[in-house]
Amino acid sequence: MAQKKIKKRRPKAITPKGFRDYFANDVLKRQGLIKTICDVYELYGFEILESSAVETVGALGKYLPDIDRPNQGIFSWQDEENEWLALRYDFTAPLARVYAQYRNDLPLPYRRYSFGPVWRNEKPGPGRYKQFYQCDADTVGAHSSVADSEMCTMLGFALEEIGIPRDQYIIHLNNRKILNGIMEEIGILDSVEPEVKKITRGIVLRSIDKIDRLGHQGVRELLDSGRKDDSGDFTEGAGLSKGQIDHIMNFVSLSEDSNEKTLEELRYLVGKSSIGRTGIKELELIVELTNSGGLAGDRIKINPGTVRGLGYYTGAVFEAELKVKYINPDGASSEIGSVAGGGRYDDLIKRFTGQEVPATGLSIGIDRLGFAIDQLNKSKKLYSEGPVLVTIMDMKNILYYQEIVGELRSSGIRAELFLGNPKDLGKQLKYADQRNSRLAIIAGSEEFERGNVQVKDLDLGSRMASTVKTNKEWKGQPAQIEISRKDLLEHIKDFFIAN
Amino acid sequence: MAQKKIKKRRPKAITPKGFRDYFANDVLKRQGLIKTICDVYELYGFEILESSAVETVGALGKYLPDIDRPNQGIFSWQDEENEWLALRYDFTAPLARVYAQYRNDLPLPYRRYSFGPVWRNEKPGPGRYKQFYQCDADTVGAHSSVADSEMCTMLGFALEEIGIPRDQYIIHLNNRKILNGIMEEIGILDSVEPEVKKITRGIVLRSIDKIDRLGHQGVRELLDSGRKDDSGDFTEGAGLSKGQIDHIMNFVSLSEDSNEKTLEELRYLVGKSSIGRTGIKELELIVELTNSGGLAGDRIKINPGTVRGLGYYTGAVFEAELKVKYINPDGASSEIGSVAGGGRYDDLIKRFTGQEVPATGLSIGIDRLGFAIDQLNKSKKLYSEGPVLVTIMDMKNILYYQEIVGELRSSGIRAELFLGNPKDLGKQLKYADQRNSRLAIIAGSEEFERGNVQVKDLDLGSRMASTVKTNKEWKGQPAQIEISRKDLLEHIKDFFIAN
Repeated sequence: MAQKKIKKRRPKAITPKGFRDYFANDVLKRQGLIKTICDVYELYGFEILESSAVETVGALGKYLPDIDRPNQGIFSWQDEENEWLALRYDFTAPLARVYAQYRNDLPLPYRRYSFGPVWRNEKPGPGRYKQFYQCDADTVGAHSSVADSEMCTMLGFALEEIGIPRDQYIIHLNNRKILNGIMEEIGILDSVEPEVKKITRGIVLRSIDKIDRLGHQGVRELLDSGRKDDSGDFTEGAGLSKGQIDHIMNFVSLSEDSNEKTLEELRYLVGKSSIGRTGIKELELIVELTNSGGLAGDRIKINPGTVRGLGYYTGAVFEAELKVKYINPDGASSEIGSVAGGGRYDDLIKRFTGQEVPATGLSIGIDRLGFAIDQLNKSKKLYSEGPVLVTIMDMKNILYYQEIVGELRSSGIRAELFLGNPKDLGKQLKYADQRNSRLAIIAGSEEFERGNVQVKDLDLGSRMASTVKTNKEWKGQPAQIEISRKDLLEHIKDFFIAN
Repeated sequence: MAQKKIKKRRPKAITPKGFRDYFANDVLKRQGLIKTICDVYELYGFEILESSAVETVGALGKYLPDIDRPNQGIFSWQDEENEWLALRYDFTAPLARVYAQYRNDLPLPYRRYSFGPVWRNEKPGPGRYKQFYQCDADTVGAHSSVADSEMCTMLGFALEEIGIPRDQYIIHLNNRKILNGIMEEIGILDSVEPEVKKITRGIVLRSIDKIDRLGHQGVRELLDSGRKDDSGDFTEGAGLSKGQIDHIMNFVSLSEDSNEKTLEELRYLVGKSSIGRTGIKELELIVELTNSGGLAGDRIKINPGTVRGLGYYTGAVFEAELKVKYINPDGASSEIGSVAGGGRYDDLIKRFTGQEVPATGLSIGIDRLGFAIDQLNKSKKLYSEGPVLVTIMDMKNILYYQEIVGELRSSGIRAELFLGNPKDLGKQLKYADQRNSRLAIIAGSEEFERGNVQVKDLDLGSRMASTVKTNKEWKGQPAQIEISRKDLLEHIKDFFIAN
């Protein structure tokens, strides 16, 4: 009996779950955004750094918001020597490692920017992927709030350079030290014993960070005994008393008309806490410097509800919110929300070196910003224009066609030979249409005899491309003209100058 | 008894073994190279694609040369659903996946380029890292050798655009089909039963690919029973007979003066093999088209020893070798060698779709090319110039300094405030020197009284920066002049125009 042949299973052609591919328009749009932002960072004196995409897990540390997930939100694996490696989840943790590693050779302050993909092993959602793009700038070795204020000013400037109108964004500003002051006041922080109640404070922080999503009642539940979400998952709470919760909620709910009034209220809430008072002083300086630095007073707003989810911040924190509207999947109008943020992290480098190295930084999320730009420019701009297509009527004349394409390229005109199956001219023109090409060049035996070529304007002729099949049928079209081969280059140059 | 406090171990500030970080000069140099190459790809009509850096292991396939290593040369891990994921090791395997996945929406031919890091879990060496950079272009859906010839022409053009002189590179050309013809002739390939002796043929291929490193005798051992390397590791051989080995070695050793003579010899060696004859015909066409396409005859050379290590090639293969010299770690002069290569892989997309989709492509290795450029431009160019530094004499006047830096930036002049500890002017100027800044602005209480600022030309003054400490000492230097505050912007603009 003959054995059945084992059929090999084909691999699936799929992007891994939560990941995506970017085609020409997506990439060119992103490149444009990144270039604009990096030019701003350069103008402000930052220089580029590209650290390795792969880090040791130890160097990255555990600073992501959702630390209770099994894999801690990162992509990691063990190498041959059992060292745990992982993809970077942001640019801040790698910067701290780089600075600690090369500190004897780097200037101080070290001002660097970085851009590129980061990876988080988190639940993907609409428009949320496991690989996304950030564009960061940081100043290492700057103790003063002048550096924080520069971050805020630069962020506003970058957003405006990208094309976000001044009335469409706001930068929310806060200071972790003030929150620490509040926590001192309610007895869950003692500066002499900072390890005590650390976990409680972590829960408080992450709870406040969720205020936009869960609302006040949700945050209250998290500060109390805990909260069950719609899917039935239970999140452990901080276990605070009603008095403690009220104090915190008074703080995060502060919403005064002016920064001056907010500062006044904050002074009252932090009471005698020395760390809280320091935080307020820092905010005062940042507000003064950003106002005189060009960020109009109404573009920056002290908001005690802004805490930033990442665990490494120690002082000023800020977040840029876009007011730009979009229609969400439910058909309702929503605002884009947070697209950038940052703050001061004075202890992150100390992890490596034992010595405190103050640092502050800014991270702009490129994907969400690109989405916002699309909402502002509703007539979707195509970033990718196709090449001039030199069609092929007869493979025997390939050298002739190749000469044309070479001549165009030598003059800097983007051009290509049709390299698919050249049997069908209609298919070749359909290809040009798919590529968003503006001109096609056609030369068959009749044109050869006359020493001529046909030049087809595809914008005019694209509607017919899918129906007409033969060379002859095309001759009558106004969008197509026959010219002498020797005049071809000049003709095409003129076309691109005129169009 | 008081318990000893547990001291937390500090994480090590190190790049993982085999990885590296890239500082400003490295990144800017690489960006320049990539831009030049991508501009060439655009000119030839290719459009950009950025696929996910993370792929399923199944989609990537096993095509790396060293398939006997435990982890197969890739970085991989299992996700929560037990799917194996991995970082891309090249851009070709992901392209095949992308094309198969989106084939109903993509134009045919699909001509795309990609650039960025790829990751291989291979033994690092001097100048060889586990993360490196490639810049690829591929045409999917092009059956004809016209597409392969375009790859070769474009490769030569890209190298010359980068600055490699025409006499410093050569493109080696071969065709896997000819090698298949030879293998038919010696009885280790039967086109009716392609699975038979597949492993033997794999060993033959990888052995030939090592000819530059191991020499003829080494390859002979690998074609025979096997070879023990200097470290004592044994590599299994192909187990061929002396007659079979001689036939293969005659083939790979072919080194004629002209491509015409090589083709003549090859016709003899492939005998009656139909696949071998097809391969020769393809080479003939590629040589003809590249010659007429601008790649002079002596820039492309048929070399039967060029086989390319990757397992997916099915037809034409080529490799660019740089003759550029460098001094190797032993002090001897070496040539850079291979920096780019590619070829035809007609079966790679079929893995996913079951239907044959012909494809051909080109990959340029950016790291090695950057090294070659450094050898050609021995006077190392600094790509990164520092900002104008506004020094700080007194924090009370911070608004005054901030106004200066803002004014410069508004005119597009790269500038920054010194954000470190401002106590010591010498340190601030040393910082400007480390940043490669050309100007520093200095204003203390005396200058304020006079309504002036000092502008220091750092190129002239840098040698003194590490010794002089006080503001007063600087006054006498010719490199430093005092001007009116209101003339500052014009003065600096003039400086950059003149210098």
